[in-house]
Amino acid sequence: MSHFLEALNDGRIKAVTGEEAVREFLGRLKGAPLFACVVGSTDTALIEGISAAGATAEKRRFTAALDSEFLVYGTPVTLPEIPKNPLGPPSPVVITQAALHEMGIAPVIVDSGSDVPPATPLYSLGFKPGKDIRTGKALSLPEDFGKKARALGRALAGQKEWLILSESVPGGTTTALSLLEALGFRARGKVSSSMPGGNHSQKEEVVAQALASAKLGPKSTALDAACAVGDPMQPLVAFMALEASLKGPVVLGGGTQMASVWALIHRLWEEGEECDINNIGLATTKWVAADPAADLAGILLQAKKEIPAVAAWLDFAPSRHAGLRRYEEGLVKEGVGAGAAAFAAFGVTNISNEKLLRKIEDITEGVNG
Amino acid sequence: MSHFLEALNDGRIKAVTGEEAVREFLGRLKGAPLFACVVGSTDTALIEGISAAGATAEKRRFTAALDSEFLVYGTPVTLPEIPKNPLGPPSPVVITQAALHEMGIAPVIVDSGSDVPPATPLYSLGFKPGKDIRTGKALSLPEDFGKKARALGRALAGQKEWLILSESVPGGTTTALSLLEALGFRARGKVSSSMPGGNHSQKEEVVAQALASAKLGPKSTALDAACAVGDPMQPLVAFMALEASLKGPVVLGGGTQMASVWALIHRLWEEGEECDINNIGLATTKWVAADPAADLAGILLQAKKEIPAVAAWLDFAPSRHAGLRRYEEGLVKEGVGAGAAAFAAFGVTNISNEKLLRKIEDITEGVNG
Repeated sequence: MSHFLEALNDGRIKAVTGEEAVREFLGRLKGAPLFACVVGSTDTALIEGISAAGATAEKRRFTAALDSEFLVYGTPVTLPEIPKNPLGPPSPVVITQAALHEMGIAPVIVDSGSDVPPATPLYSLGFKPGKDIRTGKALSLPEDFGKKARALGRALAGQKEWLILSESVPGGTTTALSLLEALGFRARGKVSSSMPGGNHSQKEEVVAQALASAKLGPKSTALDAACAVGDPMQPLVAFMALEASLKGPVVLGGGTQMASVWALIHRLWEEGEECDINNIGLATTKWVAADPAADLAGILLQAKKEIPAVAAWLDFAPSRHAGLRRYEEGLVKEGVGAGAAAFAAFGVTNISNEKLLRKIEDITEGVNG
Repeated sequence: MSHFLEALNDGRIKAVTGEEAVREFLGRLKGAPLFACVVGSTDTALIEGISAAGATAEKRRFTAALDSEFLVYGTPVTLPEIPKNPLGPPSPVVITQAALHEMGIAPVIVDSGSDVPPATPLYSLGFKPGKDIRTGKALSLPEDFGKKARALGRALAGQKEWLILSESVPGGTTTALSLLEALGFRARGKVSSSMPGGNHSQKEEVVAQALASAKLGPKSTALDAACAVGDPMQPLVAFMALEASLKGPVVLGGGTQMASVWALIHRLWEEGEECDINNIGLATTKWVAADPAADLAGILLQAKKEIPAVAAWLDFAPSRHAGLRRYEEGLVKEGVGAGAAAFAAFGVTNISNEKLLRKIEDITEGVNG
């Protein structure tokens, strides 16, 4: 049996959507994937109180760069310290790092439009950071956007049997909510947050303003919606995934942020964009899948086509590290593809939950002292 | 038997250096490689008469961008026409394109510092174009140059069992000569040229000025030499190759330009840079290997460590296309990893010389009408 199915049977991986489709999808994943992290910025993250991915609005500008630098070099470069939730738990990048190390994967960093680009080798397409979604004109994409994004999807998909596309976009759950709503998904109260208990009311106010400014109508396309109220990562990952799906399985690595990318992909597919929709899945963490203040499955299941979605059922309760134990309180839930990377490690090397936690602890303590 | 050894036996691939080491190296190449093309600019290319990779100095500024766009999109983007030697033969990118297509490879484009960056997805490290080598201060590399270049080598090497690193640098045979001489290789009269018969005397004059300005001494390091009289592709490919060699075989795809990269790698290895020197080889075309106006083997064999070097023994004499037949006159010899890509196609899919020529003709005629 494939290690993925073994992990599904013993509970290290759990199905978030229907188990039959999940089983079929997992059966098609062979070998270690290519792991890409798509970083991007949206000025929406600068709204005070909107995100805890970085202690202050000013520090959040650096989060994606520091995450990427940590993934590539094992240490941040642009600033001396690894991004950290002000309430204590280490960034989920420690999970991603441990899982990638377990599989021997060197990650690929892609810049979808960053305010502070990572000081790593960087796949760049020349796109710009997103503006505050309250303008209703968040993204201005060049004419050749789809062509370029597809070319990158093709270049990455050609390297391995399957592909994980993850993200680091501070403020991204707010742009997830706005894009989902703009695409006709009922997502209010359903998206996760890096704030304890979620900050639904503030998010909803920002999103209401964004949608009012955007004035999307029945003739608006999926890309119109993304340009109006999205962040730069969403359409780039969507087009990369569409193209990569023609070659093999693609896993969107993330929680409700990737649910918004799925909604965009789904609508682009309905609009006739070329893809193999059955080759697209999603993987996140337990902390998103079981988040009492959100409803990932409730978002995903609004699409006509059901996406095979899974969660890596990590357990940090027995951790020797106090910061990591706080993950079980839901203070930090996901980011930098932590869930997808852990999921892949379970299925590729068959590592146990205990051993993966040891690796995460080692990395955390190497970093946080 | 591996297809590579089969192609060596039947003459589609010929050894440029000692056959025993070549045989051993080819035996270690498994499956299709990752193919990266590293583009870069040097103001040295703007010297009138120095290069025929583009009809005029102004047009040469676009050559690397157009080559890359053709590789990725099948058509140039930044300008309407594919770069072309003014004397008629199509750019060697048609060979690369046909060979990559034969293997189903999507190429990775890396920017080592370009005046006009390709309008493709681009791996960028934020490095700058090179100045005219006559200044003796051609490159100013950042402090973290080696670290970044190694990170990229690691990211690429992790994706496939082996790696081809090729180049598109107009003016690059002049910087090859200057770097080789600066590193103590006797290369005068030995480097190839895109000009018929070579333009040795002009090159040598430029290089003599470069070396005089550089004032390199016995304490100068390999990187000092590259910074003084090199182009930005050379040190980037060298460090990428050093790092990638730790994971598996690396093939430098090019003629005397890659010989200069080999000289740099060789010196860095002598200086103690971490690598597995036995994992580095070189592949070029017949037109370079058999160039009566150059001496690739004569350059390579000056290194203490013998590099396994091969040539793809393409034969364009029977081509239906007049421009392609002119390759046999040595008007165009190599570029954009044409030789390495054809070499890989022989060894990966076992394609015959005739069938590969048909593919190259089809691509050429699709482009040039």
